[in-house]
Amino acid sequence: MIIDAHAHLVAPTSLYAHRSQLSVSGGQYGDPYRAKVSDADLEVSAAQNVAIMDGVGTDVQVLSPRPFLMINGNARWENITSWVHDQNDIIARTVKLHPTRFRGIAALPQQTGRPVASLFDEIKRATEELGFVGVLVNPDPDEGGGKSPPLGDPYWYPLYERLCELDLPGHIHSGNCSAGRETYDEHFITEESLAITSIYRAGVFERFPSLKLMVSHGGGAIPYQVGRWRSHREMARTAGKIARDAPTFDTILKTFWFDTVLHNKRSLELLFDVVGADRCCFGTERPGSGAGIDPVSGRPLDDIRPVIEAIESLGEDDRRGIFEHNARRLFSRLEF
Amino acid sequence: MIIDAHAHLVAPTSLYAHRSQLSVSGGQYGDPYRAKVSDADLEVSAAQNVAIMDGVGTDVQVLSPRPFLMINGNARWENITSWVHDQNDIIARTVKLHPTRFRGIAALPQQTGRPVASLFDEIKRATEELGFVGVLVNPDPDEGGGKSPPLGDPYWYPLYERLCELDLPGHIHSGNCSAGRETYDEHFITEESLAITSIYRAGVFERFPSLKLMVSHGGGAIPYQVGRWRSHREMARTAGKIARDAPTFDTILKTFWFDTVLHNKRSLELLFDVVGADRCCFGTERPGSGAGIDPVSGRPLDDIRPVIEAIESLGEDDRRGIFEHNARRLFSRLEF
Amino acid sequence: MIIDAHAHLVAPTSLYAHRSQLSVSGGQYGDPYRAKVSDADLEVSAAQNVAIMDGVGTDVQVLSPRPFLMINGNARWENITSWVHDQNDIIARTVKLHPTRFRGIAALPQQTGRPVASLFDEIKRATEELGFVGVLVNPDPDEGGGKSPPLGDPYWYPLYERLCELDLPGHIHSGNCSAGRETYDEHFITEESLAITSIYRAGVFERFPSLKLMVSHGGGAIPYQVGRWRSHREMARTAGKIARDAPTFDTILKTFWFDTVLHNKRSLELLFDVVGADRCCFGTERPGSGAGIDPVSGRPLDDIRPVIEAIESLGEDDRRGIFEHNARRLFSRLEF
Amino acid sequence: MIIDAHAHLVAPTSLYAHRSQLSVSGGQYGDPYRAKVSDADLEVSAAQNVAIMDGVGTDVQVLSPRPFLMINGNARWENITSWVHDQNDIIARTVKLHPTRFRGIAALPQQTGRPVASLFDEIKRATEELGFVGVLVNPDPDEGGGKSPPLGDPYWYPLYERLCELDLPGHIHSGNCSAGRETYDEHFITEESLAITSIYRAGVFERFPSLKLMVSHGGGAIPYQVGRWRSHREMARTAGKIARDAPTFDTILKTFWFDTVLHNKRSLELLFDVVGADRCCFGTERPGSGAGIDPVSGRPLDDIRPVIEAIESLGEDDRRGIFEHNARRLFSRLEF
Amino acid sequence: MIIDAHAHLVAPTSLYAHRSQLSVSGGQYGDPYRAKVSDADLEVSAAQNVAIMDGVGTDVQVLSPRPFLMINGNARWENITSWVHDQNDIIARTVKLHPTRFRGIAALPQQTGRPVASLFDEIKRATEELGFVGVLVNPDPDEGGGKSPPLGDPYWYPLYERLCELDLPGHIHSGNCSAGRETYDEHFITEESLAITSIYRAGVFERFPSLKLMVSHGGGAIPYQVGRWRSHREMARTAGKIARDAPTFDTILKTFWFDTVLHNKRSLELLFDVVGADRCCFGTERPGSGAGIDPVSGRPLDDIRPVIEAIESLGEDDRRGIFEHNARRLFSRLEF
Amino acid sequence: MIIDAHAHLVAPTSLYAHRSQLSVSGGQYGDPYRAKVSDADLEVSAAQNVAIMDGVGTDVQVLSPRPFLMINGNARWENITSWVHDQNDIIARTVKLHPTRFRGIAALPQQTGRPVASLFDEIKRATEELGFVGVLVNPDPDEGGGKSPPLGDPYWYPLYERLCELDLPGHIHSGNCSAGRETYDEHFITEESLAITSIYRAGVFERFPSLKLMVSHGGGAIPYQVGRWRSHREMARTAGKIARDAPTFDTILKTFWFDTVLHNKRSLELLFDVVGADRCCFGTERPGSGAGIDPVSGRPLDDIRPVIEAIESLGEDDRRGIFEHNARRLFSRLEF
Repeated sequence: MIIDAHAHLVAPTSLYAHRSQLSVSGGQYGDPYRAKVSDADLEVSAAQNVAIMDGVGTDVQVLSPRPFLMINGNARWENITSWVHDQNDIIARTVKLHPTRFRGIAALPQQTGRPVASLFDEIKRATEELGFVGVLVNPDPDEGGGKSPPLGDPYWYPLYERLCELDLPGHIHSGNCSAGRETYDEHFITEESLAITSIYRAGVFERFPSLKLMVSHGGGAIPYQVGRWRSHREMARTAGKIARDAPTFDTILKTFWFDTVLHNKRSLELLFDVVGADRCCFGTERPGSGAGIDPVSGRPLDDIRPVIEAIESLGEDDRRGIFEHNARRLFSRLEF
Repeated sequence: MIIDAHAHLVAPTSLYAHRSQLSVSGGQYGDPYRAKVSDADLEVSAAQNVAIMDGVGTDVQVLSPRPFLMINGNARWENITSWVHDQNDIIARTVKLHPTRFRGIAALPQQTGRPVASLFDEIKRATEELGFVGVLVNPDPDEGGGKSPPLGDPYWYPLYERLCELDLPGHIHSGNCSAGRETYDEHFITEESLAITSIYRAGVFERFPSLKLMVSHGGGAIPYQVGRWRSHREMARTAGKIARDAPTFDTILKTFWFDTVLHNKRSLELLFDVVGADRCCFGTERPGSGAGIDPVSGRPLDDIRPVIEAIESLGEDDRRGIFEHNARRLFSRLEF
Repeated sequence: MIIDAHAHLVAPTSLYAHRSQLSVSGGQYGDPYRAKVSDADLEVSAAQNVAIMDGVGTDVQVLSPRPFLMINGNARWENITSWVHDQNDIIARTVKLHPTRFRGIAALPQQTGRPVASLFDEIKRATEELGFVGVLVNPDPDEGGGKSPPLGDPYWYPLYERLCELDLPGHIHSGNCSAGRETYDEHFITEESLAITSIYRAGVFERFPSLKLMVSHGGGAIPYQVGRWRSHREMARTAGKIARDAPTFDTILKTFWFDTVLHNKRSLELLFDVVGADRCCFGTERPGSGAGIDPVSGRPLDDIRPVIEAIESLGEDDRRGIFEHNARRLFSRLEF
Repeated sequence: MIIDAHAHLVAPTSLYAHRSQLSVSGGQYGDPYRAKVSDADLEVSAAQNVAIMDGVGTDVQVLSPRPFLMINGNARWENITSWVHDQNDIIARTVKLHPTRFRGIAALPQQTGRPVASLFDEIKRATEELGFVGVLVNPDPDEGGGKSPPLGDPYWYPLYERLCELDLPGHIHSGNCSAGRETYDEHFITEESLAITSIYRAGVFERFPSLKLMVSHGGGAIPYQVGRWRSHREMARTAGKIARDAPTFDTILKTFWFDTVLHNKRSLELLFDVVGADRCCFGTERPGSGAGIDPVSGRPLDDIRPVIEAIESLGEDDRRGIFEHNARRLFSRLEF
Repeated sequence: MIIDAHAHLVAPTSLYAHRSQLSVSGGQYGDPYRAKVSDADLEVSAAQNVAIMDGVGTDVQVLSPRPFLMINGNARWENITSWVHDQNDIIARTVKLHPTRFRGIAALPQQTGRPVASLFDEIKRATEELGFVGVLVNPDPDEGGGKSPPLGDPYWYPLYERLCELDLPGHIHSGNCSAGRETYDEHFITEESLAITSIYRAGVFERFPSLKLMVSHGGGAIPYQVGRWRSHREMARTAGKIARDAPTFDTILKTFWFDTVLHNKRSLELLFDVVGADRCCFGTERPGSGAGIDPVSGRPLDDIRPVIEAIESLGEDDRRGIFEHNARRLFSRLEF
Repeated sequence: MIIDAHAHLVAPTSLYAHRSQLSVSGGQYGDPYRAKVSDADLEVSAAQNVAIMDGVGTDVQVLSPRPFLMINGNARWENITSWVHDQNDIIARTVKLHPTRFRGIAALPQQTGRPVASLFDEIKRATEELGFVGVLVNPDPDEGGGKSPPLGDPYWYPLYERLCELDLPGHIHSGNCSAGRETYDEHFITEESLAITSIYRAGVFERFPSLKLMVSHGGGAIPYQVGRWRSHREMARTAGKIARDAPTFDTILKTFWFDTVLHNKRSLELLFDVVGADRCCFGTERPGSGAGIDPVSGRPLDDIRPVIEAIESLGEDDRRGIFEHNARRLFSRLEF
C-alpha cells in the first residue's frame, strides 16, 4: 500500500470564492459565516483527486487544507474558526466519499497572540467527531509578522502535552506569509528549518519524549546544513555546556519525522542518509507545487515514487517503511 | 595553492570591547569614535590566524569582518560607518602584516532605509586605497526587522551596477538578527535562500549579466530544495509565463557562486551535483562555527579540505577549481 | 428606458476563488497574476444578470466591480493593479456579451499612501480602450485604517482635474473596511457622508465647477441630517466667515449627484425633497444588499422602480429624469 | 410642560480656560486638579441659559456636558476623572440654582482601553449624591483612533447591566474626534449609526431587555438608511440564520429611544414614521450646533418646537409624548 | 531701568477658553479659527500685569506667550498657526496698551517633523509688522515624544542663519510635555541643559558666531554640573580630538545668554560665577512658577531683584548689566 | 578613612568584548551565556584600580558596574540577567582580591515593562551570597524610550518595600540612553532630577520613611534649581493643597542622600548649603568622566578630596561625615 502522508485538499472553486467573501465580511453576515459547497461540486473535485492519485499509483492520501490559504495572523477570530471548520468539514466529507482513499489532518484555529489552548476544541472535534489522524501545526501563525514564538518557546508546551496525551502527530507546515519579505513557498522552508532548530535548542523532546512531529518538505534546510548544527552541539560539549554523553545533534534530529516532498533524487538520498529512512514518510503534495514537468524525465516532478524506487541505497524494508509502515507508525489512528 | 574564500577576521579583544563602548556612545565621545588596536595586539591575533591556517594547509584566506558583529539596522549612522572603517582598516593592517597569506573583503555601511548609494564611498576606499578584492553584502541590513527589500528589489540595482563596473564580487552574508525570531546562524541560511530565490524571481542576472555574487554556506537551502523551484519554473513555462526556451532554474542557479562551508560530505556532493563544481570556491569560515570536533573523524568540522579531497565524483580539474582557480576567476583582483 | 446607474458585476465564482489565490500570492506566481474566467462561465453569469434585470424591468445597468471585494489598503501594488485589470476586463467582456444592456464603470488601483496620479493609467485604459462611462472612487482606500485623506484634501485634486478634463463622472463608493470598527456596509454610509461634508468644507466645487460626483446610497446620512450643516453654514455667514451672498449648504449639496439605493419610500421622498429629483439617478445595486424580501410588499427591497413610481410628489418629468435622463446627463459617454 | 431631553451645559469661560491648564498639567499641580468656577460666574451663565430656554418656551432642560469638550482617549486618567467631576459638579450646581428648570445627565470617565467597570464610581456618585437622571455614554472613548469596541461588544455589558439595575438611561453621544478623519460633528453621526447597528447585530436588547438607550440626533443615518438593514434582516431570515418569527429590524429599532435634534421638518417626519413618535423625546441641543438662522423662517434652526407642532401627521398624544411624556418614561428619575 | 527679560503674557480667561475649543475644532469652524478677546478684557489683564510689575519695581517686561500653553507636537498645522497668531497679536495689543512697559517676544509655529523654514513667515511678521524684539524657540516641539532633533542638529541651522541675519535673539524655552515622563516644569530644565550641551557638542557657535540664544532658568543644570563638561572637553583635548588651543568648555558656555529665573541666592551666585554676570539678564517669569511665598523672607520667590542686589560679589556695573544693559545688548531692537 | 561611595568597576577588556558577543547571541550559544574573565586579567585590572585610589588617597571604593554599559531596555531577558550576574560576580571577585579596599553595589536585571519583583532574586543573591552593601537602581530601564514609570510611580513600591526591609540603600543612576535624544551623560542628570521631583511629588518617603536612596552626581539639577520646587510647594500650601505645617521642599529634599561627583568647588558649596553636609557622601566616579585635567589646578577633575577640604564653610565634623561617616550611616552593611 502506498500512503501519501502529505497531500492537500482538492476543493471546488466555490470554497475559495467563499474565502474572499469571508475575508471582507467583518461579521456583516453574522457569525459563523460558513461556506456552502454542494455535494455535487465536492464529488467532482474528490473524483478528480482520486484520478490524480491513480495516475501515480497512490492508494491513500492523508489530506490537510492548503496551508497558504488558511486564515491566521490578525484576522478576526470568528473568521479563523469559521474557515477552519469549513476546511475540516469538507475534508471529512471527502473522506466519507472515498473512505478507502483518504484520511484527514485537521487545520487548527491559530491567531497571533492567542493562547495555544484555544486550539483544543478543534483538536477534540477533529479526533472525536471527524475521525482525523493528525493536526496541521502552523509554526508561524503571525504569517511573517515576527510575533510568533518559535516552536521551542513554552507558549507551545500545552499543545505538545495534548498531542502526547492523544498520541496525535503534528504536521509542521507554515501558511501564508502576508507580512514578511518571503513568498509563502520561501517561508515554508524557513519555518521548517526554524522548527527543527528551535525545538532542538529548547530540548523539547526531553520534556515531551512521545511527541510526534512531521516536518514538511524534507526538513527545510536542516539535513543539508546539518554540519553547522553538529558543530554547535560539539562545541557546546567541549565547552561543558552539555553532558559528555548527551546525544549528538544527529540523534536528536532523528526524533523528528520527515516527508519526502523534495522532487529531487539527490536531495532524497541526502535526507535518508542524514535522518534515516525509518523517519521518512512518502509525501508528494500532489497536486501542488511539484506539478512542473521534469524536462529530463518528462514526468511531473511530484511523481516521487519512481524516484524513491530508483534509489539504490534503500533496501526493501526501507522502501516499505517509507511508502507505508512509517506512516502507520506515525499516524497511529490511521487504520485500514 | 589553497585559497579559503570565506574566512573572517581574527581580532584582539580590544576591538570588540570598543564595540561595546561604541554601541552606547551616542556621540558622547565625538564622531568618528574609532577603535584603538595596538600593533602588538594585532600581530598576536594575526599570527594566531596564520597558525590556524597552517594547521589545515590553507595558503591564503580572503578575510571579511565577522558578519554577526557588524552594526546595521537602526543604529546611528556615525556608529555604523565608524565600525565599518575600523573593520576594514584592521583587515588591511592584517593583510599588510602577512601579505602572502591574506586578502580583504570590505564591510559596507548598511543602514535600514538608507539609499544603497551610501555604500559607494566605502567601496571606493576599499578598492582604491585598501586594495580589497570584494565586498560583503548583508541582504538584510534591518537584521530581522522585516524592512529590508529582498535582493531582487530595485533598491539594490545601483549597487549591482557599481559592482559590475568594478568587476567586484559581492559576498552575500547576513549579519546579526536582533529583531527576528531566528538566531543569527538560523538567519544566515534563511537569507541565503531568499537571496537566491528573490534574485531569480526578479531576473536580476538578465539585467546585470556580469554581476558576481557568492552565496555563503553552500547556498542556504536551495541546492537541497532545488526541486521546488525547478517545478515553479516549469509550471511557469507550461502556463506561457516565460518563453519556451527560457533558461531552466538550474541554469540560472549556476550563475551564482557558492562556497563550501557545509561541514558534511554528502551535502557537498549534493552542492557540486546541483550547481556544478566550477561555481564553488573552497571556504571554511575557520575559525568559526565549524569548530566542533567531528565525533567520527576526531577532526574539526571546518577542516573541509580532506572532505572535499575524498569526494570521488570530483576530477582533478574540479578540485583545482574548487581550491584555487574558481576563486581566482571570482576575485579578479586577487593576484599573487 | 430604465437605466440603473448603480449596479455591480455578477461574476463566476472562479473570479473570486482567484482573488483568494491572489491575496496570498506575494509574487509567488509572477506578476501580473491574472484571473482566468472562461467565456462559458462568464456567459452564464451575465445571462443570470440580464434575467435579474428583466425581472424588474431594467433596460440598462451601469456596472462596476463589487466595491467590498476590491483590493486596496496596504496590499501589494501588483495585486491591486492585477485585480483592477481583471475586474475591468471582465466588465468589458460582459458589456460585449450584452452591448445593449450594460455599460462599464472602472475600478481604479487605489493604495494607501500612493499618489493619486497612479490612477491615471487605468483611467486612460478604461476610457480609451474599454469604452467605460465613469470611474469608481473609493474615498477610503485605507479601508478603515485612518490614513486616507478625506475627499476635500488637496491629495485628490489631480484626480478631480483629470475627471473634469475627460468629463468623466466619479462614483463615490467605499470598499472593504478591514481595519476599522465598522462592517463594510456601515462604512459605506460613513464614507458617503464624509465625502459630502469634506468636499463641502474644502470648497472643492468652487475649484472644479464641472466636476461630476455621484454619491452612493442616497448620500449616506446627509440628506437626513441636512439641518446640521445648514446651521453650520448660516452660523459661518453670521460670523462673517463666508460672504453674505455665498451659496447655502443646500445649494452646494445640489452640486452632487445621488442614486436611489435606499429601499424605503419615505427616505426617497426625503432625498428628492432635499437634493432635488433632477440630481438623482435610478440605482438599485441589484442583486446586492437590497435582496431581502419586504415583509409588507412581498417584493425584493431592491425592486425600487415601483416605489419611485408610487411617489406622488414626483411629476412625470421628474420620473423620466430619475429613470433615464439624469443618468444620460451624468454619464455623457453613455450612448445608445 | 416642554422637556428638552438633549441640552448641554452653558458654563463660564473660566471652566474652559481651566481645561487648557488641565490638559497640559501632567500632574504638575497635584491631582486632582479641579476647576474653580465662582458662584457669581455660574449664576450669570445659568441665567443666560434660562433666558435662552424662555426664548423658545422650554420648561426644563436635561443637561449634560458639551460632549466634544470632554477629555477621553489616551489622556491621563487623573485628568479624565478630574474633568468629569468638574463637569458633573457644575451641572449639579446649575440644577441647584434653577431646580425647576434643569436636571442633570452625568459624564463618565471613559479612557481608551480601561475596563468599563471604572465608570461605576461616578455613576454611583451621580445618582446617589448629585441626583442625576441619566448618563452620557461616549460610544468611542478612543476619539476616532479605532480602538474603541463598538457598543455591541461584550466590553460594554457590565455597563448595560448596571444601567438596567438602576433603571438609568444612557444617552449615546460621541465626543471629540482627535485622531480620525472626521470633525466631531461628522463623527457624531457616524457613531450614532454604528451604535444602533452594532447593538442590533449583537442582540444586546435580547440580553438586556430593560436597557434604555437614547441615540442622539435622530439616530444618525439609520432611520434614513433603514431599508439597508431591513434587507439584511430579511436575507438572514431567508437564509435560516434567524428564526422565522424573529422580530424585524424595525421592531428592534423601536427598542431604542431617539431625540429630535434634526433641525429639519422632513427629517423629523421620517424619524417619527420609522421609529414611532412614542420613542422620540423633544431635544434641541440649544444653544449649540443648531444656532444658525434658517434663511426661510428667519428663526434659529434649533427652535424645533414649532417645527414639530407643524407636523400634521402627529396626533395630540404624539405631541404630548414627544414634548413631555416620553422623556418622563425614559428618565424615570425625572420628577417635578 | 529694570528690564525683566523673561516674562509671559497675562491674558484674559477667554483666550484660554478659546484654546479648548481650538484644540477640538478639527477644522469644524473653518480655518483659521481665531480667538476673540475684547479690548475691555485685555485692558483689565494688562493693567493687572502692570500692577504686578509695579509691586516689585520692574520698569519693562519682555513678554512671550506662556510656553506650556503653546500648541505644538502633532497638532493640526492650522491650529498651531492660528494659536501662534493669536498669541503674538494679543502680546502686540498689550504692548500698544502700555508702550513704555512691554515689548514682545514672538511664539513660532513649531510642529513635529515640519521643516524649520516654516517658522520664517511668523518671524517676518513679528519683526516687520509687530515690532517684536526676539523669538521664543521651543527646543522640543515634539513635546516629550522623542522626535525633535536636538538644537545641535543641522535641522535648526536655517533658523540660526535667519536669526543672525536679523540680529534677533532666540529665547530657548520648551513648552508642554504631553508625551513624556516629565511635567512641563521638569522638562524645562532638561531641555535647557540639552540645548546647551547639544549646541556645544555640535560646534554651532563656530558656524554661527553672531547667534544670540538666551537659555531660560539660569541654564537648566549646566552651571551646576559644569565640571562634567569641563572634564569631557579636557579629555578630548588630551586625546587629540580637539586642538591644543581650542576654547575651554567655560569659554563656549559664555557664548550663551542666561536669565536669572532661579529664585535662590546661592544658585544665582553660582550662575554669575560660572557664566559671568555680563551674560545674564534679569528675568523673573513673574507672575508664574515663582509665586510661592518664601517662608524665610515672607516675600514672593519671584521677587528676585532684592536677592540679586544682596549679592556682595557683584559690582555696580555687574548689577546695571544684569538689570538693564545686558538685555539692551541682547535685544538690539529694544529701544526706549 | 576615605570612603568613595560612587565608583565603578575597572574590568579587563575581555569582559566588554564578551558584551558584544552577548548582545548578538540571541540564545545562539545557550543560556546563560556567561563571560570568561581569567583571574590573571582580573588581578591586573583590580591592581590598576587600587593604584588609582592610592594616587588620590582613597581607602575604600564602593564599586558598582559601569551604568552605561549595563544591558536594559528591550534586550532579551536572558541577556540582561546573564550580564548582571557577570557584573556582580566580577565585582565580588574584585572585592575578594582586595577585601580592605572594595565593597560591592549590585546591578539589577531591569527590563522595560517587567514587574519590579523580578529584581528580588538578584537582591537576595547580592546580599546573602555576595555580601554587597547596596544596589544600583536605574530609574529609566527603558533607556530613553519613554516607557519607564518615574520613580514616584507605584510600579516601584515593591522594590522600596524590599529595600526598607533589608535596610539596603539604592544608588540612583541611569544607564545607557539608546532611544532618546540625549547622550548617556546628559541623561544621567535628567534622570537624577526626575528621580527627586517624582519621588517628592508622589510622597514616597511618607509611605517608606526608612527608604535610603542616594542620588548620583550631586542630585542632577535640583539643588541648583531648588527655588522652583520651593515655590511650587509654597503655592500648594497657600492653595490649601497641603497641610499648613506640611514639611517644606527643602525638608523633603534632605531625606535623600547625595554624592559629591560634581568636579567643581562652587557647585559642591551649593550642594552642601542646600541639602546639608550630613546627607552627602564623598564620591568620585574615578576613574570615569571626571578624568579631564583641570587647566587651572593641573590635577584630574575627579580628584575631589582636596576640593572639599578647601571648602571653608565645612567644619571638621562635616568633613568627616562626608568622607566616611555618612557613608557608614547610609551603607549599614559596610563594615571594616
